[in-house]
Amino acid sequence: MRYGFLGPETTFTHQALLQALAVMPEEFDATAAEMVPFSSVATAAADLLAGDIDALMAPIENSVEGGVSGTLDVLAATDSITIVSEQTVQITFVLAAREDTALDQLTSVSSHPHAQAQVQGWLREQVPGAQIAAASSTAAAARDLAAAEAGEARGRAAVCSPLAAEHFGLAVLAEGIEDYEGATTRFVLVTREGRIPARTGADKSTLVLQLPHDRSGALLEALEILTSNGVNMSRIESRPIGDFLGRYSFSLDIEGHIEDRRVAAALRALHRLCPVVHYLGSYPRIDGRRAEVREDFADHAYDDAREWMQRLTEMITPTDPSTEI
Amino acid sequence: MRYGFLGPETTFTHQALLQALAVMPEEFDATAAEMVPFSSVATAAADLLAGDIDALMAPIENSVEGGVSGTLDVLAATDSITIVSEQTVQITFVLAAREDTALDQLTSVSSHPHAQAQVQGWLREQVPGAQIAAASSTAAAARDLAAAEAGEARGRAAVCSPLAAEHFGLAVLAEGIEDYEGATTRFVLVTREGRIPARTGADKSTLVLQLPHDRSGALLEALEILTSNGVNMSRIESRPIGDFLGRYSFSLDIEGHIEDRRVAAALRALHRLCPVVHYLGSYPRIDGRRAEVREDFADHAYDDAREWMQRLTEMITPTDPSTEI
Amino acid sequence: MRYGFLGPETTFTHQALLQALAVMPEEFDATAAEMVPFSSVATAAADLLAGDIDALMAPIENSVEGGVSGTLDVLAATDSITIVSEQTVQITFVLAAREDTALDQLTSVSSHPHAQAQVQGWLREQVPGAQIAAASSTAAAARDLAAAEAGEARGRAAVCSPLAAEHFGLAVLAEGIEDYEGATTRFVLVTREGRIPARTGADKSTLVLQLPHDRSGALLEALEILTSNGVNMSRIESRPIGDFLGRYSFSLDIEGHIEDRRVAAALRALHRLCPVVHYLGSYPRIDGRRAEVREDFADHAYDDAREWMQRLTEMITPTDPSTEI
Amino acid sequence: MRYGFLGPETTFTHQALLQALAVMPEEFDATAAEMVPFSSVATAAADLLAGDIDALMAPIENSVEGGVSGTLDVLAATDSITIVSEQTVQITFVLAAREDTALDQLTSVSSHPHAQAQVQGWLREQVPGAQIAAASSTAAAARDLAAAEAGEARGRAAVCSPLAAEHFGLAVLAEGIEDYEGATTRFVLVTREGRIPARTGADKSTLVLQLPHDRSGALLEALEILTSNGVNMSRIESRPIGDFLGRYSFSLDIEGHIEDRRVAAALRALHRLCPVVHYLGSYPRIDGRRAEVREDFADHAYDDAREWMQRLTEMITPTDPSTEI
Repeated sequence: MRYGFLGPETTFTHQALLQALAVMPEEFDATAAEMVPFSSVATAAADLLAGDIDALMAPIENSVEGGVSGTLDVLAATDSITIVSEQTVQITFVLAAREDTALDQLTSVSSHPHAQAQVQGWLREQVPGAQIAAASSTAAAARDLAAAEAGEARGRAAVCSPLAAEHFGLAVLAEGIEDYEGATTRFVLVTREGRIPARTGADKSTLVLQLPHDRSGALLEALEILTSNGVNMSRIESRPIGDFLGRYSFSLDIEGHIEDRRVAAALRALHRLCPVVHYLGSYPRIDGRRAEVREDFADHAYDDAREWMQRLTEMITPTDPSTEI
Repeated sequence: MRYGFLGPETTFTHQALLQALAVMPEEFDATAAEMVPFSSVATAAADLLAGDIDALMAPIENSVEGGVSGTLDVLAATDSITIVSEQTVQITFVLAAREDTALDQLTSVSSHPHAQAQVQGWLREQVPGAQIAAASSTAAAARDLAAAEAGEARGRAAVCSPLAAEHFGLAVLAEGIEDYEGATTRFVLVTREGRIPARTGADKSTLVLQLPHDRSGALLEALEILTSNGVNMSRIESRPIGDFLGRYSFSLDIEGHIEDRRVAAALRALHRLCPVVHYLGSYPRIDGRRAEVREDFADHAYDDAREWMQRLTEMITPTDPSTEI
Repeated sequence: MRYGFLGPETTFTHQALLQALAVMPEEFDATAAEMVPFSSVATAAADLLAGDIDALMAPIENSVEGGVSGTLDVLAATDSITIVSEQTVQITFVLAAREDTALDQLTSVSSHPHAQAQVQGWLREQVPGAQIAAASSTAAAARDLAAAEAGEARGRAAVCSPLAAEHFGLAVLAEGIEDYEGATTRFVLVTREGRIPARTGADKSTLVLQLPHDRSGALLEALEILTSNGVNMSRIESRPIGDFLGRYSFSLDIEGHIEDRRVAAALRALHRLCPVVHYLGSYPRIDGRRAEVREDFADHAYDDAREWMQRLTEMITPTDPSTEI
Repeated sequence: MRYGFLGPETTFTHQALLQALAVMPEEFDATAAEMVPFSSVATAAADLLAGDIDALMAPIENSVEGGVSGTLDVLAATDSITIVSEQTVQITFVLAAREDTALDQLTSVSSHPHAQAQVQGWLREQVPGAQIAAASSTAAAARDLAAAEAGEARGRAAVCSPLAAEHFGLAVLAEGIEDYEGATTRFVLVTREGRIPARTGADKSTLVLQLPHDRSGALLEALEILTSNGVNMSRIESRPIGDFLGRYSFSLDIEGHIEDRRVAAALRALHRLCPVVHYLGSYPRIDGRRAEVREDFADHAYDDAREWMQRLTEMITPTDPSTEI
């Protein structure tokens, strides 16, 4: 099995993939997994569809930045890709050096501007004298520092992920150096073949809906469909469809699995309402929290109703074949 | 075939039954139908369930008085009775005598107090000198007048239905004598065997719902179920359940036939919500008006959604047999 | 103060009035109250409007029979009558005689047919040998027995209300003799002058709504108005309007007082939706149960929103006087 | 008056500002307006709040890319900025040169990579032989070409906005050269002082809502508030709040003006529901389309309901001052 991820190595996406492999059922033989870094989700998805890789880990949502457009757009563009699991990674940074060094001995700190923005308060206070140097990624900053000659590395440090420090054998001078803690990114593992993992009772499903554009109140109708089937929504994000101003598709996470009758019933109703419904998969929740389901939304309530209807329709007098159910 | 009706002969219910027989398909051979009057809907229904009669015509709703409790309660009490057709009769009265008579020659007018209440303004103005005599029914008033000796009948008139005047061979002195025109009664023809007539495209279905008593807002949920399946409601009436103050069941007429996917879907959802759903039948609307159905509530929209769901669920990985759909 | 009630004396309505007087605030000097029996709610209401009586106690809802049409129609017909309090009375019967008598010594039991229907099982089992005699009311049965000569009264009993037995000085041979216990009737005390009692925090309000007849789904809209203002409905009953089949008005009890901002907001929205809204009054709940109100439906939430809006509208640039709020 | 815009000069935002000034009422003396380019919306907004500029034109929504995060976040962050008008600009590009030149004479075409992506099909087909050169913006490409010496400019062209070509005195060789036509960007003019333009009857209002995070279904409740006041929503976009995964605020455009009673009523109800409601202003719609308002959502329906409620509340008996409204 070949697993793609948004690289380079030691990114948070890489860490999410390692987490996923660590809990994978034995039959998948995660120890034999090959991990392949990609420079964009779009190119990785193309390779996935082409069969060059078997699965792909990609970021889908960040607690600070919101939905990851690249991933959302790739998922919305095809019916051949299915989400099979999710991971969350807390975004945290370390300050790492070739060897243990006192902070006041540092003369230069390198990192990616994006990461730097998240740690600048800490750097200003803790290593005010050091120069800030830009690298092409936090992984590159760590790798370059690891590869430098001993003399050159003296007095230098890198802002990088804990994984990068470990991967490149760097000493961690300080950890949790981000100015605001708590940023989290959610990642999804997607596969090509349209396999849906069986339900566990603590599942989530992901959809993309395109609403009818000629009907004011269609979003309200869509949400009522969920509510009237006892389905909670844990995420909703808008993305422009691209044709007109004000035209959006919506990416949703809902609680429950397509095997849950209430989820299947809601999906069928959405399919009637919406010109486009992309079902992106049902998969175990990473937090393992089971949905609380009201009695009339339980499987047996749907099954009982179906059997009752079956009995009723048997009473219909057929007049001609075209009216039979 | 033996048809019961709420008697005595020449009641408006009798007229409704005659109307129904007049339009009955040939295979029922309405000319051979036997019509059996009953003194109450409850006794007629008992005979229907016992097999003594084959069908029963009963009033269900009056535009002035509202729901006919006796009929509604009988229908709510059993699952073995099904409505197969409806009739409406405009409630109108005639003034009839043994022979054509000038109004100012009338000395006495007999009728049932209930009917009299509806024509008293007209009588006061048109036959101010006549005495008002009470009869046990308008049919009895007409029958007695027809049976009286010629001398005795002179100067007498009866307030009765047009059917009664015709049936007993009386001369109609004036018609449409009710003070407020437009009162209409709706009747239903019910059968024992649980047969549902095939849909015609202009159908109506009748339900009795008992709502969960522990949930505020359950009536709202029930109505939303109808709306979210594009099902219009043409009648709703409350009836006490009998156990607690404020506990009601609801008798509903909805547009459409149980063969309509949208109606079946709404019924299934109501079955989940409600501890009791009595389905009382689907039958052609007497006014022949076809329902206007939004595209996403049409049969094919439900069928398409079901097929789509079928394809999706085939993708589920079975882990053990108990989780298979 | 003269209080009318649906008579004759010792009816359950009489008892409800006595209950109401017993808890009346001192300033009303209930001891000086005069109680006037009426033979119908309609005639009593006419006297109330004419000023002949000051208030009227009338049954509004029975747990077995449902809404009391006579009272509901009188309340719906005018805006000049307001409900100021409610009472509930458990419908229970006693077997009473002139003096303490063994049941097997009874030869005759008199009562009103309506009451008899509710105790017939008990009578058949406990006094199988006694003859059943009809009286014009249970009050009359008790009164006649009390007035009979001693010899004549021997072996006779009456089925009547506990109040009637007490009022006419009869001995109670057995109490709670109804076959099915638990039937309850709710009564309302109405006044002419349109006074609304101040809120207590445990209040109820009564409305009659006539829905727009050209809009399918109007009942759903009306219920959503209540829900979206956090207002629970504790009773809903349909009554025909009288013009067309299927046209109903709805009589509602809602939790809360017109002084509650959420109730006032819901009423205003109903006033926009409905061609007719009769507000029949706000009054203390007899069960004293206080409504649980979600924080965003509390008075202060409505008041805060109003102040916020006030500040916003002060920012509007007036272009000409006609557009000012 | 000093108007800021997202620069540099000749951007589409610049064009939007010119459009806005062209239709500004006389009292604003648009001819004396000073236009100040800014490199980001955030810095411009800071200058606006500081009083250095009086208004600011900024892009808010693009039909292809969706909401403009920078602008949405600035608007959501303060209550001191109000939208006073909107503009839309169709995103279209021209190919411009120093003087009229045949396409096959071109050896080099310069532009900004973003623009180039939108015209690359056209360039490949129409000027296959020309080299593509990157500029820091389309404005810079046009300006540099205009500033080049005559000899140097020969055979060179720039992809830029129509405004840039005109502004820098270039000859337009081809117009509408974008591969997919129809991309549109919407811009808003914002001011500091919290002034709301009076309603015109064809207005729009913009909000940012933060929903209660402990209540599933809050988005549904928010949309129902709009629907139950007859308020259509023409845009909804999600933006992460930043504290937890799955926590979003929503930026909305609704039809109507805060002076419309139905809009004010909806806003008040949203204020109760939501911990945060940012009202960003009401302003004329650029398309001039007037809202169709159902009779029960018209101003007079709200006003009538308020007067009716006023009369009812006057009937309340005050018991103590604290319960008075």
